[in-house]
Amino acid sequence: MTKISLELGSGGKLMRDFINREILQTFRNSYLEELADAALLPSNIALTTDSYVVDPLFFPGGDIGTLCINGTVNDLIVSGAKPQFLALSLILEEGLDWTILKKILKSIKKAATEARVLITTGDTKVVRQGQGDKIYITTSGVGEIVARPSLDKIRPGDKIIVTGTLGEHSLAVMLARQEFGLEAEIKSDCAPLNFLLPCWQKGALWMRDITRGGLASVLNELAERLSYPIVINEASIPLSPPVQGACEFLGIDPLYLACEGRAVIVAEAKAAENIFQMLRNHPQGRTAAIIGEITTSPGRPGELLLQTSSGGWRLLEPLTSELLPRIC
Amino acid sequence: MTKISLELGSGGKLMRDFINREILQTFRNSYLEELADAALLPSNIALTTDSYVVDPLFFPGGDIGTLCINGTVNDLIVSGAKPQFLALSLILEEGLDWTILKKILKSIKKAATEARVLITTGDTKVVRQGQGDKIYITTSGVGEIVARPSLDKIRPGDKIIVTGTLGEHSLAVMLARQEFGLEAEIKSDCAPLNFLLPCWQKGALWMRDITRGGLASVLNELAERLSYPIVINEASIPLSPPVQGACEFLGIDPLYLACEGRAVIVAEAKAAENIFQMLRNHPQGRTAAIIGEITTSPGRPGELLLQTSSGGWRLLEPLTSELLPRIC
Repeated sequence: MTKISLELGSGGKLMRDFINREILQTFRNSYLEELADAALLPSNIALTTDSYVVDPLFFPGGDIGTLCINGTVNDLIVSGAKPQFLALSLILEEGLDWTILKKILKSIKKAATEARVLITTGDTKVVRQGQGDKIYITTSGVGEIVARPSLDKIRPGDKIIVTGTLGEHSLAVMLARQEFGLEAEIKSDCAPLNFLLPCWQKGALWMRDITRGGLASVLNELAERLSYPIVINEASIPLSPPVQGACEFLGIDPLYLACEGRAVIVAEAKAAENIFQMLRNHPQGRTAAIIGEITTSPGRPGELLLQTSSGGWRLLEPLTSELLPRIC
Repeated sequence: MTKISLELGSGGKLMRDFINREILQTFRNSYLEELADAALLPSNIALTTDSYVVDPLFFPGGDIGTLCINGTVNDLIVSGAKPQFLALSLILEEGLDWTILKKILKSIKKAATEARVLITTGDTKVVRQGQGDKIYITTSGVGEIVARPSLDKIRPGDKIIVTGTLGEHSLAVMLARQEFGLEAEIKSDCAPLNFLLPCWQKGALWMRDITRGGLASVLNELAERLSYPIVINEASIPLSPPVQGACEFLGIDPLYLACEGRAVIVAEAKAAENIFQMLRNHPQGRTAAIIGEITTSPGRPGELLLQTSSGGWRLLEPLTSELLPRIC
């Protein structure tokens, strides 16, 4: 391949290859090597960055403003840090309506307040019409490290917990594009995950927010880095009826759909029930579920296996093609 | 005005109005209010971010890779922090040549090594063809605070020092676009300013790197926030002969041209000569010059005055129109 393709941005295999072969090889250092959603730096500081290019800018349940705060805040939280200070960089396309920009800034403010972070610095660039798409936002964040998650502590028997129903964000954005001739009452799950911070003190070993590539991609990436397979149980995976319906109608697997307010947690077996109950008691965690575990069989090290509702086993492969560009 | 115009990104009056009226009003907090190039946060941490959208990607003396490191590193240095850790976010346009991306990554690596910073985390998004322009890079950086510059310490008699000749970056980019039918041997001044860090211990009160809007914009912004006028002397402003020639030919004022490896320093009168000598002894500071001072007359508070080579006085107004979009 000589040209960059949309697949590179999918969160799938091509992206991971790019990160491993180009980014890691070029810039190798101990912070980058962790390949976490945020770098854990000296002085107990975590640093993260993400560009937001979602299309359309506004969708049921959120907009690029809520997304650019929650996405970055969540990257810090799942990396073991309490989000504190953000930096915001705007790339505006000439001709963008001021009213749209103002609406987005308002939305950013509201989301930042909810996530208890401050916008402390920023930058604005304007590019000619046709060299952007209305607005792209890059949000970087620093936070205070409260836990140092490590894959080394993960053992067979540890439980896999998801913090809520899957796929709402992807489907809300997809349907807002009106390319599918389908209407459904699906709102993005976009939300800050601050309520997960106490899990670090309750036996959570590892967390990742479920974004591009969905639950299957997050767990595949985890499985690849462990010496054990991961099994999850289809019947226990929380899906809302509208998402289940839309996925069946469109022939899409919800396990590969991005969320923007959900995470997967690996917890010590003895701590899992406690964490699960804590999540269920929080308004944002009412649909949380224990969906599987780290195991020794069936499956081989590095594999992600789904026990289907009909009782069979299915290997969940890493995503190779692009389901939906510009989802976040 | 109902639409975003290119002028908003110029570093001039429109941009400052936008920052004051929209950004500050919306997100107001004590860190943001400083309006420095980096936010000075608790735990002696500084945070900065900048998006780089330069066109063309490659120009004499640098490319978007060197720019996206040096620009962010310099924002930290002039804010009083030692640059340490960076985060890199790429927005790639579908169809970009892999060879170009690899060349840029190499260039980033080289620049990061030279500026003594590590790339610790990042993000990659791909947008459809026609929704970007090959590659945009947002670089955020954190550094350790080594000085806390404050406008309150600036007094009449304090000296204005520029660290080298002006305008090379702007003209190199402008000429690389080949829109002017002019050829000249001008290389961008793009460089990391780490050699300025010791100035903070030698009596420097305030620094700013000279980017969008040039020296006149940086000093106008400073003058607006002081209770004194600033005077600079045309004859003492360092310009290379090719820049002087090109500016005369194109009818451009070099005082409004962006650099990417130059800064302006305000230093206590008694420290200025010492700082000036230190700069002159460094390869990057060979063309540094003391060009003016904070004063009480002539001029009124908030004004920036140029004593012309012919002996007259000229008021240097804030930039209102866009000289050159996508310069950095």
